[in-house]
Amino acid sequence: MPDTVTIAVDAMGGDDAPGVVLEGVEGALCADEALRIVLCGPAEVVEPFASAHERCEARAASEVIGMAEHPAGAVRAKKDSSIVVGCRLVKEGAADGFFSAGSTGACLAAGTLVMGRVRGIARPALATVIPSPVRPVVMSDIGANADCKPEYLVQFGQMASIYAEKVVGIDRPRAALLNIGEEDAKGSQFAQEAHRLMRERLGNFAGNAEGGDILSATFDVIVTDGFTGNVCLKTIEGTSKTLFKALKGIMLGSPVAKLGALALKGGLKELMTQVSPDTYGGAPLLGVKGALLVGHGSSNALAIKNGVLTTARTARADVAGIIARTVAEAPSSDGPGKAPIGGAA
Amino acid sequence: MPDTVTIAVDAMGGDDAPGVVLEGVEGALCADEALRIVLCGPAEVVEPFASAHERCEARAASEVIGMAEHPAGAVRAKKDSSIVVGCRLVKEGAADGFFSAGSTGACLAAGTLVMGRVRGIARPALATVIPSPVRPVVMSDIGANADCKPEYLVQFGQMASIYAEKVVGIDRPRAALLNIGEEDAKGSQFAQEAHRLMRERLGNFAGNAEGGDILSATFDVIVTDGFTGNVCLKTIEGTSKTLFKALKGIMLGSPVAKLGALALKGGLKELMTQVSPDTYGGAPLLGVKGALLVGHGSSNALAIKNGVLTTARTARADVAGIIARTVAEAPSSDGPGKAPIGGAA
Repeated sequence: MPDTVTIAVDAMGGDDAPGVVLEGVEGALCADEALRIVLCGPAEVVEPFASAHERCEARAASEVIGMAEHPAGAVRAKKDSSIVVGCRLVKEGAADGFFSAGSTGACLAAGTLVMGRVRGIARPALATVIPSPVRPVVMSDIGANADCKPEYLVQFGQMASIYAEKVVGIDRPRAALLNIGEEDAKGSQFAQEAHRLMRERLGNFAGNAEGGDILSATFDVIVTDGFTGNVCLKTIEGTSKTLFKALKGIMLGSPVAKLGALALKGGLKELMTQVSPDTYGGAPLLGVKGALLVGHGSSNALAIKNGVLTTARTARADVAGIIARTVAEAPSSDGPGKAPIGGAA
Repeated sequence: MPDTVTIAVDAMGGDDAPGVVLEGVEGALCADEALRIVLCGPAEVVEPFASAHERCEARAASEVIGMAEHPAGAVRAKKDSSIVVGCRLVKEGAADGFFSAGSTGACLAAGTLVMGRVRGIARPALATVIPSPVRPVVMSDIGANADCKPEYLVQFGQMASIYAEKVVGIDRPRAALLNIGEEDAKGSQFAQEAHRLMRERLGNFAGNAEGGDILSATFDVIVTDGFTGNVCLKTIEGTSKTLFKALKGIMLGSPVAKLGALALKGGLKELMTQVSPDTYGGAPLLGVKGALLVGHGSSNALAIKNGVLTTARTARADVAGIIARTVAEAPSSDGPGKAPIGGAA
């Protein structure tokens, strides 16, 4: 049995909260017998659920941060919001990690302001597992830092590689810089400088990746700035969605096509699972003191369940501790204390 | 019958030149009876073909620019290369446009150095038609300018909108800025400034687009810097390719699946045509004096044929003339004569 781990969960995160969150938490508790949950949210939501479930404790939080609120402002103003309360539990050692499918910006802000940045990390970065039908690929940053300096990308690569190895289970991951040409000297001035620094400082650096290399899993870790990463991730999700929709139209196009679709149903369902973001259910903010995963706002119960389980895996693997011991000691030209708060994802 | 138009074609452009180029040119000549071709390349290639085809003239060019050569350097050194000769024909008025499936960088450099930039255009931009199953979408820049200033994007949007309307046939195209959030104030500092300028100066500006809005054709024109655009385009192509490959695996997975696939064959073939870059066959460099289209290096004969026909359509619509009369008169904070040569696509 794995080590006991305590994960705080935002009962109010996501478009369909608290319903799907409670369902997802229940699924996670069933799947992992060494998991303990601290459910954060309004007393009338979290207390009855905690009473009815073993290994689940309620933590009343009277406020909720909405999706449209200014992230850093809301985190500062709403000290008793489920997101701030959850991060504080980690900060105080009452929980090993926090999961929320609420406002990404507010989670990033609370992670940095409340849990705190690992000393020596210039900027925490949001990573995600790209659901590829070939094999999982970790990409970072996917939106925590819309404006980056080239040197940040070295740490993004180091942190994402640790996550890829310890949580996703990729043995000796190869990291690449997302760029617009395979050759070393290609790209914008930013990309050229990032390439030079990564070549110098990132032990598992494998060169440039192009957009076409992401889903094909040519590399295990794709490193980029938060603007490009976010555009890219949404482009992949949107392209899959549009193609599956077109495919569905074809399959419903005629009685013969409908029969044909029936014969392919199993395989297609599996493919859709492989490329669904619900399979991993959350994006870790790497470089803060503790495990923090943010789920899609549109998370269903399965995505919440998987997000909570991945948060537990991240906490058990002590990703934050490994980052503190290894990455943060590497040279960085950017001192601490200057990071703006609140991502744009 | 459309107006007579003369297009210079690089016989040596692309991975499978000159074979597929000659086949593609033959197809274009058949499809468009008012089309004249000047075929540029080694005498032994272009002369026999020109002798055997009406409305085709040979123009010997003794040199070829390879895909791996430094673009601007090669254009300056190889004055008798098929790319430089083709661009010179346009410059001298002997042709109305030039098409090549050769080195994109060399074509961009020759377009700017030989054909020349339209006065008042800060940076020529490479545009392309994103093959969406919903409807065509024009994206620009897709790689001519890896490093941009926010103000360039206003002209990119104006030029791409003209192309969308006059060549792709989109009535009153709506242009959007590729960004990482729908709200006006989202994004990097670059994107926020570009948004402000586009809002002010781009008549058909419709706000921010996210990565998921590209293939779903939420907007008609997607404007971005050449780095993001190139990554995005390759991400779309790569995602389609990986998904179709997975789909093929499913269809060959069992005898029943094979039967099912048979029933869907027609519809799938049509979808693959819709999302194939071969359907348009070329990316126009907008902002140079004349029609210049660059094809994929991996172009097949159909892509070459469509690329030549699109070049003819671009020349007939006088896209360069419209840009000179409309876009170039709009305010630009960047004077002429400072553009670096040779894109990174």
